[in-house]
Amino acid sequence: MVPTRLAPGPRKFHVLLGTFIHSKSRTELEYIHDAGVAVDHGGTIVAIARDCESVNVAKDRLLEETGWTHSDVDVVACREGQFFFPGFIDTHVHASQYPNVGIFGKSTLLDWLEKYTFPLESSLSDLAKARKVYTACVRRTLSHGTTTATYYATVDVPATNLLADLCLALGQRAFVGRVCMDRKELCPSYYRDESAEQSLHNAMESIAHIKEIDPGYELISPILTPRFAPSCSSEGMKGLSAIQKSEDLPVQTHISENKSEIQLVADMYPDSESYAKVYDDHGLLTPKTVLAHAVHITEDEARLISQRESKVSHCPCSNSSLTSGEARVRWMWEQGIEVGLGTDMSGGYSPSILEAARQATLTSRHLAMQIVDEALREKTKLTVEEALYLATRGGAHCLGLGDKVGGFEVGKQLDAQLITLGQVQDDGSRAGEDDDGYLDAGNVDIFGWETWEERIAKWLYNGDDRNTKKVWVKGRLVHHRR
Amino acid sequence: MVPTRLAPGPRKFHVLLGTFIHSKSRTELEYIHDAGVAVDHGGTIVAIARDCESVNVAKDRLLEETGWTHSDVDVVACREGQFFFPGFIDTHVHASQYPNVGIFGKSTLLDWLEKYTFPLESSLSDLAKARKVYTACVRRTLSHGTTTATYYATVDVPATNLLADLCLALGQRAFVGRVCMDRKELCPSYYRDESAEQSLHNAMESIAHIKEIDPGYELISPILTPRFAPSCSSEGMKGLSAIQKSEDLPVQTHISENKSEIQLVADMYPDSESYAKVYDDHGLLTPKTVLAHAVHITEDEARLISQRESKVSHCPCSNSSLTSGEARVRWMWEQGIEVGLGTDMSGGYSPSILEAARQATLTSRHLAMQIVDEALREKTKLTVEEALYLATRGGAHCLGLGDKVGGFEVGKQLDAQLITLGQVQDDGSRAGEDDDGYLDAGNVDIFGWETWEERIAKWLYNGDDRNTKKVWVKGRLVHHRR
Repeated sequence: MVPTRLAPGPRKFHVLLGTFIHSKSRTELEYIHDAGVAVDHGGTIVAIARDCESVNVAKDRLLEETGWTHSDVDVVACREGQFFFPGFIDTHVHASQYPNVGIFGKSTLLDWLEKYTFPLESSLSDLAKARKVYTACVRRTLSHGTTTATYYATVDVPATNLLADLCLALGQRAFVGRVCMDRKELCPSYYRDESAEQSLHNAMESIAHIKEIDPGYELISPILTPRFAPSCSSEGMKGLSAIQKSEDLPVQTHISENKSEIQLVADMYPDSESYAKVYDDHGLLTPKTVLAHAVHITEDEARLISQRESKVSHCPCSNSSLTSGEARVRWMWEQGIEVGLGTDMSGGYSPSILEAARQATLTSRHLAMQIVDEALREKTKLTVEEALYLATRGGAHCLGLGDKVGGFEVGKQLDAQLITLGQVQDDGSRAGEDDDGYLDAGNVDIFGWETWEERIAKWLYNGDDRNTKKVWVKGRLVHHRR
Repeated sequence: MVPTRLAPGPRKFHVLLGTFIHSKSRTELEYIHDAGVAVDHGGTIVAIARDCESVNVAKDRLLEETGWTHSDVDVVACREGQFFFPGFIDTHVHASQYPNVGIFGKSTLLDWLEKYTFPLESSLSDLAKARKVYTACVRRTLSHGTTTATYYATVDVPATNLLADLCLALGQRAFVGRVCMDRKELCPSYYRDESAEQSLHNAMESIAHIKEIDPGYELISPILTPRFAPSCSSEGMKGLSAIQKSEDLPVQTHISENKSEIQLVADMYPDSESYAKVYDDHGLLTPKTVLAHAVHITEDEARLISQRESKVSHCPCSNSSLTSGEARVRWMWEQGIEVGLGTDMSGGYSPSILEAARQATLTSRHLAMQIVDEALREKTKLTVEEALYLATRGGAHCLGLGDKVGGFEVGKQLDAQLITLGQVQDDGSRAGEDDDGYLDAGNVDIFGWETWEERIAKWLYNGDDRNTKKVWVKGRLVHHRR
């Protein structure tokens, strides 16, 4: 029923050999050369060989350590200039809005919802259309190295369940949320839950489906998804909080994306002191809650979010496109809030977390431009290393996956990508280029004299899906390109 | 001596058939369907057939009008969903900095010059290295549909002349400027003109070379290039002004990119009222002058620039990367200043004018975020149509090419690109996709229900060089990909 592009047959152990790059801390990338990583049938990293004289030595050490023989293992070795990098983590993306990427005109949040978003989402109760849209979205994000995605689906239960099926079949780690929106004043009559009771019932139906297809939530997990405070009733949100507690599930919603939205929330919930407090008053500010945007949150709200150990998904492409504002990532870090990146398609125009990381650095510079104090201005800027931390380990921590994915360590699962950068030859042409042009190597041109730090900067600023040659989730090859 | 990838042999007339899209005005794109364009041996559009029932009718009408026979012409017909678009115009790009794209750390203009830029530029006096860098740059920008580029080369005459040779051989319309920088205090001892006299002599040498290889400046033109006021002596700038008048040449320089730079100029030129006035006082503010950046110009400066009919190259990628600021495009338009787009590599990270257009819309939104008045805020945002105007006709007007390129009209030269967008099939896969992944179609996913306006928006926000299948300059096919 669902497409599959994955090779069947008995699986071998994996041994990856070459250069591994990942975040050592928020501010530092670690470059591990001439190394090897051994991955078992379950996709778990069981041994790492570092500080070897060569990858052959690394391989021998891994075989010795694991007791595997040469014939037991599939070897993937980096070619010159290639490296392994952790898979990207998208902490906020509306799969159902994928066909609208790039289409937003001059709109801002509330009119954008009415004009572009609700009509499209509503139309996905047509399952053939949903299959087309969701398949394209999952395959596209996988091709950009997104190994984990935190999806909003739609109100519709069968279509939401289809998205979960597709993620499982295509091999993407995913949190799949049926959208809860039961507030009659704010939700269009053609697209909403009929009541809080129905909203909660449908949420449970979708949870039950995911439990059935992936009982241990090994790859696919449900996520409770009150759209955002203006579209939810108090009763609905309280009910979701009860489900959260009984099922111990993650939660996703939006917060403080846009000033009109904040005013709307203040008008609708006069008894709550702030937008964050609305969620807290309904029991939805938990350590498993991911709040998208948080552009305009106050100091008090940041403190509350930090106390509750809730997380923030920074969505720079969306916040720029819809003129929402510039979220203050470093300031949130200083408040003790963990931050990840979201493409927020289709408020955001791009399926790529690499693009989100790039725009995170640029947005931090737009913020910095407004700051007079030089030290504070300099501090506001995000570095290449920090942007790539947000894209990997930052996202993992947001989703409670910090001990599972985000880097190359024994015990973690192999959610990773193999990256190639283009090599410029002495005559100015590109290695591997054919007569039909630059087909394979993308836009990153390495001249040969760059440091590894410079190569990574070049990848961040000009890289695209062409540089992502292979993608693994839980040890399974889920995307490859020539 | 220079690489050539162009097919030799007798040239045919061209007939292009299909959909043509170009700017009708700053605010409006024109969509011309079922149309044909006839191009003569010199690359000039000699006839256009519009409002036909089909492309076959268009073709017949063109043959009738031109008197050409079927065997006289090479036909290029759009496939389903393809369209022709004017070539992009890059009004400010440092070819010599191409290897540094994406490498800028947390620097701002003046330390960026010292740390990253001068060392690289200086090293290109090695002609083998210059050939590698310039070939890669010209081929890369052509692949992104840049049919005209306004280049800074370096101080070195032979390397600058090599860039001109390469542009001619590879078929890119180009303005090539030898960089004049003779001010001892500000230019590093290892990279500068020894004196104003030598600076002017070397400028003339490069002009003479271009005159020799392209006597009518049909494709390649010299452009006078005082780097920017802080690196030029008064004597040097006055000498360039004299050359400008005697040779009737264009001029390019930088203005008001960064606040420290503006202060530096104020300190160095206490007798001039403003940065713009420095250039004006040296006779360099002419109708043929392109000023890059203009981020922080005052009302008085804008008025002066407008009076002198000088032009501005807007470089949003660079201005964001180096935290320079947000140039006010609509405000400059209102002052009567013509504006084009520049990639400004490697202050800007991208070789793509499509990326510059995209970032122009986003930067205008960052500007808008700071504006309280709602009407003014809304007005500040640039639309898709305006961004693509900047990328084509706006750039053409900046470079005095408004009657030659930038749109599809009889009498203009064919500087154009053929664009393909990806088609999503019902099962969510992509038409034309092979087992190795999304090789050919790039990231724009068309689902089939989009309007043409929506397709163009999708192209602006997710398009890349993969969507540019063919590029013509002056009727000559200078780039193609499968």
